[in-house]
Amino acid sequence: MTYCVGLALRAGFVLLSDTRTNAGLDNIATYRKMFTFEDPGDRVIAIMTAGSLSITQTVMSRLDDANSDPDSADAILRAPTMLKVAEIIGRMLSDVTAEVSAKMDRMSQGASASMIVAGQRSGGPMRLFLVYPEGNFIEATEDTPFLQIGEHKYGKPILDRVITMDTSLEDAEKAVLLSMDSTLRSNLSVGMPLDMVVIEADAMAVSRRRRIEADDKGFARISQEWSEALREAFQKIKPV
Amino acid sequence: MTYCVGLALRAGFVLLSDTRTNAGLDNIATYRKMFTFEDPGDRVIAIMTAGSLSITQTVMSRLDDANSDPDSADAILRAPTMLKVAEIIGRMLSDVTAEVSAKMDRMSQGASASMIVAGQRSGGPMRLFLVYPEGNFIEATEDTPFLQIGEHKYGKPILDRVITMDTSLEDAEKAVLLSMDSTLRSNLSVGMPLDMVVIEADAMAVSRRRRIEADDKGFARISQEWSEALREAFQKIKPV
Repeated sequence: MTYCVGLALRAGFVLLSDTRTNAGLDNIATYRKMFTFEDPGDRVIAIMTAGSLSITQTVMSRLDDANSDPDSADAILRAPTMLKVAEIIGRMLSDVTAEVSAKMDRMSQGASASMIVAGQRSGGPMRLFLVYPEGNFIEATEDTPFLQIGEHKYGKPILDRVITMDTSLEDAEKAVLLSMDSTLRSNLSVGMPLDMVVIEADAMAVSRRRRIEADDKGFARISQEWSEALREAFQKIKPV
Repeated sequence: MTYCVGLALRAGFVLLSDTRTNAGLDNIATYRKMFTFEDPGDRVIAIMTAGSLSITQTVMSRLDDANSDPDSADAILRAPTMLKVAEIIGRMLSDVTAEVSAKMDRMSQGASASMIVAGQRSGGPMRLFLVYPEGNFIEATEDTPFLQIGEHKYGKPILDRVITMDTSLEDAEKAVLLSMDSTLRSNLSVGMPLDMVVIEADAMAVSRRRRIEADDKGFARISQEWSEALREAFQKIKPV
């Protein structure tokens, strides 16, 4: 499984993904699920992936090919708007899912994948989409400024409680890390290292990019501080 | 959907269930999912149910019938051990699931249900089981003294952090209510009122039983205090 979370705040995007993939419980590997595309000053796009690796890798390869082919209509680095970018990715994801599923059907198995797409074009708004396996998509809004894919439930309560459009990037980084921490603790199929990308509003480039390894001291500290803070908070509440 | 959680601690059992059932999103109703069977001094058994109401109601009716029939071998009020109780419930759940599924198959639909069974017989140990739709079951142990059915993910992080075998009943009641609170906030298919049952170790009877309505002041207070405590704890953690 996977856990990826994306926040679209007034101050910018904060995106976090894990890296664990598994084919059964006994075949676990590390793959990047965070991809960025930049034309600095003009646009910045980040994609996070969940689901069947055979689907997501094929989609990412086709997106790369399209960007390198000057005649392709599927180049997200040349698409006029972020809506168009989401449509290109949706169609590609739907196509690849159908191709892979046709092969899987023979074995009575299924495969699917979903993606979070974040980005901004110069002069345009920041947009954050969740693209479903069928190719349709939804967008984060002021009321719900975050989207999640994969094992999203464990880490949702903290986001529900602290994230609004006006949350600072610093607080948002902390919140997605704590959301991931709850998920890591409760579900073995989500695993370190983590990839975090921050894209400030109107920067049209990746502002910060960080790989957080299993022995990262900062992450270990906030994870432990959060555990202690939760236990303390719990003790302070009077019995019902 | 449903959320039920059961804790088996040294001090006793703490059990909490919601009451929301739905046939589709537009047909929501309230049904009790917490059932107790007592022969005070000799035994106490509590059952919580999740899944298809047509299955769980039939199983509960058959359990009642068996208890009333002096010749029945399926009377959980006469079974010699809690293991035997779990086996009776497992077999009944499996039988009813098969019967209902045979009808559903014609419509290409499925139905299943699972149960948490807690109880103690005089002179025997406290035991807490999770019975699967297939009739097999697992038991809570010292390492993992709680079991959940239904929408279990939102409310698991708090239990993972605060519950051990030595948690007091008072803290355990608080913990299951906060676990439920996180679930209620994040998932509409889980809803008030709640049923809480506490069975002290070796009491061989229900020690406390409480229905918590939507306007319960105590629950509203700990829910709000927890929100504030979480936000405060979040603010205290230094950025990574």
